[in-house]
Amino acid sequence: MKRNIFVEPLAQTYIEKQEIEIVERKGIGHPDSIADGLAESVSRSLCNMYLEKYDHIFHHNTDETQIVGGQSAPKFGGGVVLEPVYILLVGRATTEVDGERLPYRSVAIKAARKYLKKHCSHLDVDADVMLDCMISKGSVDLMGVYDNKPKDFLSNDTSFGVGHAPFSETETIVLDAEQYINGRLKKSMPEVGEDVKVMAARIGNKINITVAAAMVGKEIPDSDHYKSVVQELKDKVHKQAERFTEREINVDVNTADDYKKGIYYLTVTGLSMENGDDGSVGRGNRANGLITPYRPMSMEATSGKNPVTHVGKIYNLLSNQIAQDVAKVGGGDILECHVRLLSQIGMPINNPQAASVKVKLADSVKMKDVKSDIEGVVDGWLQDTSKITNLVVKGKIGTF
Amino acid sequence: MKRNIFVEPLAQTYIEKQEIEIVERKGIGHPDSIADGLAESVSRSLCNMYLEKYDHIFHHNTDETQIVGGQSAPKFGGGVVLEPVYILLVGRATTEVDGERLPYRSVAIKAARKYLKKHCSHLDVDADVMLDCMISKGSVDLMGVYDNKPKDFLSNDTSFGVGHAPFSETETIVLDAEQYINGRLKKSMPEVGEDVKVMAARIGNKINITVAAAMVGKEIPDSDHYKSVVQELKDKVHKQAERFTEREINVDVNTADDYKKGIYYLTVTGLSMENGDDGSVGRGNRANGLITPYRPMSMEATSGKNPVTHVGKIYNLLSNQIAQDVAKVGGGDILECHVRLLSQIGMPINNPQAASVKVKLADSVKMKDVKSDIEGVVDGWLQDTSKITNLVVKGKIGTF
Amino acid sequence: MKRNIFVEPLAQTYIEKQEIEIVERKGIGHPDSIADGLAESVSRSLCNMYLEKYDHIFHHNTDETQIVGGQSAPKFGGGVVLEPVYILLVGRATTEVDGERLPYRSVAIKAARKYLKKHCSHLDVDADVMLDCMISKGSVDLMGVYDNKPKDFLSNDTSFGVGHAPFSETETIVLDAEQYINGRLKKSMPEVGEDVKVMAARIGNKINITVAAAMVGKEIPDSDHYKSVVQELKDKVHKQAERFTEREINVDVNTADDYKKGIYYLTVTGLSMENGDDGSVGRGNRANGLITPYRPMSMEATSGKNPVTHVGKIYNLLSNQIAQDVAKVGGGDILECHVRLLSQIGMPINNPQAASVKVKLADSVKMKDVKSDIEGVVDGWLQDTSKITNLVVKGKIGTF
Amino acid sequence: MKRNIFVEPLAQTYIEKQEIEIVERKGIGHPDSIADGLAESVSRSLCNMYLEKYDHIFHHNTDETQIVGGQSAPKFGGGVVLEPVYILLVGRATTEVDGERLPYRSVAIKAARKYLKKHCSHLDVDADVMLDCMISKGSVDLMGVYDNKPKDFLSNDTSFGVGHAPFSETETIVLDAEQYINGRLKKSMPEVGEDVKVMAARIGNKINITVAAAMVGKEIPDSDHYKSVVQELKDKVHKQAERFTEREINVDVNTADDYKKGIYYLTVTGLSMENGDDGSVGRGNRANGLITPYRPMSMEATSGKNPVTHVGKIYNLLSNQIAQDVAKVGGGDILECHVRLLSQIGMPINNPQAASVKVKLADSVKMKDVKSDIEGVVDGWLQDTSKITNLVVKGKIGTF
Repeated sequence: MKRNIFVEPLAQTYIEKQEIEIVERKGIGHPDSIADGLAESVSRSLCNMYLEKYDHIFHHNTDETQIVGGQSAPKFGGGVVLEPVYILLVGRATTEVDGERLPYRSVAIKAARKYLKKHCSHLDVDADVMLDCMISKGSVDLMGVYDNKPKDFLSNDTSFGVGHAPFSETETIVLDAEQYINGRLKKSMPEVGEDVKVMAARIGNKINITVAAAMVGKEIPDSDHYKSVVQELKDKVHKQAERFTEREINVDVNTADDYKKGIYYLTVTGLSMENGDDGSVGRGNRANGLITPYRPMSMEATSGKNPVTHVGKIYNLLSNQIAQDVAKVGGGDILECHVRLLSQIGMPINNPQAASVKVKLADSVKMKDVKSDIEGVVDGWLQDTSKITNLVVKGKIGTF
Repeated sequence: MKRNIFVEPLAQTYIEKQEIEIVERKGIGHPDSIADGLAESVSRSLCNMYLEKYDHIFHHNTDETQIVGGQSAPKFGGGVVLEPVYILLVGRATTEVDGERLPYRSVAIKAARKYLKKHCSHLDVDADVMLDCMISKGSVDLMGVYDNKPKDFLSNDTSFGVGHAPFSETETIVLDAEQYINGRLKKSMPEVGEDVKVMAARIGNKINITVAAAMVGKEIPDSDHYKSVVQELKDKVHKQAERFTEREINVDVNTADDYKKGIYYLTVTGLSMENGDDGSVGRGNRANGLITPYRPMSMEATSGKNPVTHVGKIYNLLSNQIAQDVAKVGGGDILECHVRLLSQIGMPINNPQAASVKVKLADSVKMKDVKSDIEGVVDGWLQDTSKITNLVVKGKIGTF
Repeated sequence: MKRNIFVEPLAQTYIEKQEIEIVERKGIGHPDSIADGLAESVSRSLCNMYLEKYDHIFHHNTDETQIVGGQSAPKFGGGVVLEPVYILLVGRATTEVDGERLPYRSVAIKAARKYLKKHCSHLDVDADVMLDCMISKGSVDLMGVYDNKPKDFLSNDTSFGVGHAPFSETETIVLDAEQYINGRLKKSMPEVGEDVKVMAARIGNKINITVAAAMVGKEIPDSDHYKSVVQELKDKVHKQAERFTEREINVDVNTADDYKKGIYYLTVTGLSMENGDDGSVGRGNRANGLITPYRPMSMEATSGKNPVTHVGKIYNLLSNQIAQDVAKVGGGDILECHVRLLSQIGMPINNPQAASVKVKLADSVKMKDVKSDIEGVVDGWLQDTSKITNLVVKGKIGTF
Repeated sequence: MKRNIFVEPLAQTYIEKQEIEIVERKGIGHPDSIADGLAESVSRSLCNMYLEKYDHIFHHNTDETQIVGGQSAPKFGGGVVLEPVYILLVGRATTEVDGERLPYRSVAIKAARKYLKKHCSHLDVDADVMLDCMISKGSVDLMGVYDNKPKDFLSNDTSFGVGHAPFSETETIVLDAEQYINGRLKKSMPEVGEDVKVMAARIGNKINITVAAAMVGKEIPDSDHYKSVVQELKDKVHKQAERFTEREINVDVNTADDYKKGIYYLTVTGLSMENGDDGSVGRGNRANGLITPYRPMSMEATSGKNPVTHVGKIYNLLSNQIAQDVAKVGGGDILECHVRLLSQIGMPINNPQAASVKVKLADSVKMKDVKSDIEGVVDGWLQDTSKITNLVVKGKIGTF
C-alpha cells in the first residue's frame, strides 16, 4: 500500500528564535487533569474487561467526565472538606456481548476510585468524593465499525492528529518541572499537593516560570512554614530548570498569595477541586502533556476515547510518536518537526488522507538526505496502529 | 410538674385471642431497612460531630434516603453487578456554628459508607454503589427551638408516638427469626444474604412463616446446593420458632422460586437492591422492628430524625420503652399494653398533651393494684428524655 | 369459587366513644403528598402509554419519588426561590415490548411536570424545579406474572390491605378541611398555598384542629394582611367544621408563628418544599387520604404501584371501597366497619387468604340480619378487581 | 499609559498558499455547542440579574456544562425519545450580596430552558430533557478581585488570547455553510435538524466539504424523501460555497449513511444528543466560531466565563476583534493577521504583558506604512475592555 505521506520544509521561524513562547502544563492534580486521568483509566479498565472476556476491545468512548468542585475550610495544621467533590463519569460503552450483560458501570467506578486513591495522596476518597456514573450504551450504528480485523478499521470520522518534536527548552522545562514536583520532590516536600500548574512565558531570552501549587494544610503548621515552603519550591524549581537552558530564568510560586491580607493557596487535600474548582476532559493538556498556543494543536480530547477505532485519539498519539522518531533521524539535525495526520471517513485508519511532516533542518543537512528516512518512520508507525492501542491499554503512553 | 398520664383498661380482644394476626419484619439488608439504617447512622455521626466540637447536638433531620436499585446478573458460583446501586442521602443539618463551617456532608458520606461496609458483607462498596449526598442546611426558624436546655425543649410539632408490649408469640417469632438468620446463622450458612424478609400470618392457632431470603451466588455452586440451603434454612427457622410457641408452625422459604422454570432468588450481593429493588426511609419496620397492622402504628419515620427535639422520633422510642417497662409491672399479669404519647406544639417535650396507657390485665389482677406503678413508669421516662437521646447517640436503641 | 370471607363483630370500643382520637391529613401541597401525587401520575401515564400501544398494562412500579427541598427567601409582597427543589423519580417499568423500546422516561417526566403545573399554582416549574428520572427496567422474573388474563393474576407477595368506614366526625372534619381550603376557598383566599397540613386531636368531646398553611408572599403585602388571613382562615375552617359535629371545636392556624420575633409561615410558592422540606412516597396519607393512628393502618405505599398486579395497592384500595359499601348496608346501623384483605403469594388476587370484615352494629340490629349482605359486598368487589384498576387508570380514585 | 504592543511581520507561508488546510464548525445543535450555548446564556442571565439589582456584575464562571446523551428510537415519519438527555449546569457564582441571597440557580435553570426552547426547534424540553444545576458559590479569595473599578481589574491568571483575520476562503465557507443551513435554509428544509457539523479539508486547490446533518424523522416520511433531502442539501451547500471561492469544491452529506444496510442519520429531534452523544463546554468551536488546527488556537473555554475579570475570555474575544480591525487597515493589503494577548497575573487587564500582532503584508505595502495604524487599533481596544463586556452581556458577540 502506498500511503499519502508528504514531507516538506517547515516554512516558519524556528521556535527557539521566535520572540515569544508560552507553554503550560496542568499538573496531575488539576481538576481538568483529574478528569482526563479518570476518563482514561475508565477506558483502560473497560478495554481490559473486554479483552479478558472476549480477547477483543469493544466500542466505547468515556471521554467525558465532569468534576464539580466541593467546598472546604482549609487551615494551617488541618482543615476539613465541607462538601465533597462530585464526579460524574459519562460516556458510551458496549454493555452486552452475545446476550451477556457486562458490569461496565461497576468496572468504571472501581477504576475511577482506584485512580483517585493512587494519584490524590491527601484525599479521603471515602468521605470527600461523590462518584456517579452515567455511562450507558452507545448508538447501534457506530458499533458496526468493529466487525473487522484491526488493520481494516475504518475511520469513524474525518479527524485530525497533530504532534511536534523535539520539545523546545521552555516546553522541556515546563513538563519537567511538574513531573519533578509531583515526583522526586514529593517525599522531601509533602506540603506540596498534586494540584500544580506550571506556566512559562519566554520573552526573548528570558523565561518566566509561574508555579501555582496547592499547599496541604495539615503539613504546614503556620504561615512561616508556608513561606519557607514557597521559597524552597521556588529555589528547587529554578535549579531544576537551569539544567535545560542557558537563558535567564525567573520563577514565581503562588503569585495570587497576599500575606498581608492573609491569602495563601492553602488546601485540605492539595487539590483545588476541594473548594470550587471544576474540571472536565479535554480542557487541559494536549496528548503530549502540554498546552502550547505557539504550536499547532488539536482540539480533540484524547483521554477516554477507545484506542482501537477512534481516529482522533490514535492520530494524536501517533503524530507525537512519529514526530519524536522523526526528530531522531539525522542525529539532531532536525531542529523542529510538525506532524499532522488527516483521516478520511470510511477509509482504513492506517491509510490517512494525508500524513504531512514538516521539518526545519539545521543548515548542515539537506532535505533529500533525510526525506526517505522520515517517510520510513511514518510508514512504519502507520503499518500497525495496534502498537498504539497496546501502549494505551497497558498504560505505557500518556494522553494528557 | 403534674403530667397528663391516663391509665385505662384496653377494651378489645387480647391479641393472642384474635383470629388473625399478621406480622412482618424487613431484615437488615432489605432496601427500606438499608435506607433506615443509613439515615440513622448519618444522624448519629452528625450528633457525634456536634458533640465533639460543641458538646451540643444541633438541629438536623436526615430522615430521607433514596435507594435506587441497580442491575445485576447473578449466577450460581458467581455473578456480577452491572449497574451499581444509587443511594441519595437527603436531609437537613446545621452546617455552620458561630461562623465555623462544618464538614457535614463528608461526615455523612463517611458514615454511610462505613454502615454499608459493616452490614452488607457481600457488597463491594467501592464498585457497586454510587453514593450522593444532598443534605443541606435547614430553614432558619426551626433552629431557634434549640436555644434552650434539654429539659425545656418544646415540641416542634403536634406529633404522636406509639408502642406496645409484650410482643405476641407471632411478633416474637418474626423478630427473632430475622435476627437469628442475620446473626448466629451467618457463619454456618454464608449462602444466605442480609436481605431477608420474614412475614408471619397467624390464623387461629396456625402460624405460617414466609421467609424471602436473597441467596448469594458465589457461595452456591449449583441448583442442588441452592435447594439444600433452602431446605436447611426452612428447618432451622422452624426449629427456632418452636422455642416461642406451642402453636402449629409452617415455614416457607422463597416461595416465588420456580425450579422448573429456572427461577431462584439468587443475587450477587445477598441484596435485592442490586437488581431493581428501590428503598426509602420510613417505609419499612416501625421503631420496634416490626410491621404489625393489627396493632396501633405510627406513620412517623423514626430513623434519621434528630434525637433531641424531634418529638416524632422521641415519642415513638419512648412509647416502646414505656410499654416494655409497664409490661414488667406486676410480673406477667399485664397481658397487653398500648402506650400513646401525644405532643402539643410549643409545649415542653416532657409534658405531653396526653400520655395514654391502655392495659389488658390477667384475671388475677385489678387495675387499682397496678395503676400507680404504671404511672410511675411513665413519669420516670418522661422526667428525662435525654436518656433516650443518649441511647440513640450511642447506638444502643434500634429505630427500625 | 368460594372465597375466604370472614364477617365478625368488632370487639372494641366504638371510635366515637374512645377518649382520644388523632387524625391528620397532609394536604395536596405537602412534600410527601406531592411525592405521592407524582408517583401516581407517573404510573397512570405509563398505564396509558401501555394501553394505547398494546391494550395491556405492563409491569411497573413507580412508587418511589424523592423530593429534596430547595432554598428560598420569602418576603411580604414577593420573595424568590434561591435553589430549586430537586425531584427524583424512581421505580421500575417495562421498557421494551416485543423488541420495541418505549419512551418510558420521557413519558414519566412529562407526566410529572404536568402534575406540578396543575397542582402547584404558585410554582414556576420552569425555574424552581429540577426533575430527574432514574426509572429503569425491573427484574425479569417479576414480569412473568403478567402472562395471564386479568382474572388469573397471582399475588406477587404476601400482602395486606386495610380500610374502614364510615369516617368518624374527626376524620370527616380533617379530610373536609383540607379539601375545602385547597378547593372552594382558593379563589377567595389566594394567599393560602397548597401546602396545608390539618391535624385534629379529639380529647373527649373537644376537637382541637391545627392547621399549618404555607402563605404565599406575593399575595400578602405586609404582616397586618398576614394576620388577617390567619384569622379569616381560622374562622372559616371553624365554621366549616361545625357542619360535621356538635362537639366543641377549637381551631389554631400556624401555631409556630411568633409575630414578636417576626416569624411567619411565609413562602414564595405556597409550598414548604421550596425551603428545606423534603418528601417521599408512602410517608404521608394512607389510601383513604388520612393518617389515623387509632385505626388499623397499612404501611404499604399505595401511590405509584401498578394497579393490575400489585396486591399491596389493590387490596388497600379494595378494602376502602368494600368498607364504604359495607357501611351502607342496613342504612346506618353499621356504626363501624374494618376490612382487612390478606393475600397469599402465588394465589389468584381475587381469592385472598382471608377477607376479614369486622363490624360494630347499632343495638337495633343483629349480625345475622346483615351478614349475608356484607358477604355479598365483599364477594362482588373481589369478583372483578379490574374495576379498581380502571378507576385508578382513569384517575377516579385517590391513593393518598 | 504605554502598552506593550509588538507589531511584527508574520514569518510563515500565507494560509491560502499552504498545501493543506482543515477547518471545522460544530453547528448550533452539536452537543458541544449546546453546552457552550447553555454556559454562555447562564452567564449572561447572571450578569443581568446582578446588573438589575446592583448595577454591577459580580464574580461567576459557569463555563462547565455536561450533556449526557439520551436514548432514542427515531424512524421515518416519527420516532420517540426513550430516555431524556441529562444536562448538568456547573460553575461558580456570587450567591449572596450584602446579606441578600440571590436566586442564582433558579435564574440559571430558567435561562437554560429558554435557550433550549429557542435553539432546539424539534426538542420537547418538557419531556426530553432533565436539567440539573450544581452551580454553587466560588472560593472567597477570587472575589476580592472585584473590589475595584472596571479599568483597574487585575488579571486573575497568566492567561492568553488569540485571534486571526481575515478568514481564509475555507474558513469563510465553513462558517457560512452552517449559518446558512441553520438560518435561511431552515424554513424551506425543515427536515434538517440543528445538529449540523461542517468540516472542510482544502488540499491544494480542492476543497472537500463534509456536512453531517441530523435529519428529523417526523419531517421525512420515507427513505426516498431522505435521499432527496440529502441531495438537495448537498446541492445548496455547494452553490452557497461557490460564492466564496474559485477553487474546486466537493460536498458530501452524511457520509456514514449506508442505504443498503438501512443506515441513515435519522433523529427524533434533529439533535444527536438524543441518542448517546455527549457534550461539554470548551470542546468545540473557538471564540471565532471555528476549529482551525492550522491556525494558532487557545485552549481556553470562552463560553460561560464572566466577561468582566476573566482574562481568558476577554483576551480571546478581544484578539478576534483586534484582528478583524487590523485586517481592515490598509484596505486589503494585510493578507493575514495573528493577534496574541498575554496577561500578567496581578497586572491590570488593559495592560497586557504582551500584545503581539503579526501581519503578512501584500507586496504593495510596507510595514512602516501600517504599523502605527495597527498599534492604534490595539491601543483603542485595550483602553476600554468594558466594550467587550457590554457586547457579551447584550449577546452581541458570539463565543463559539
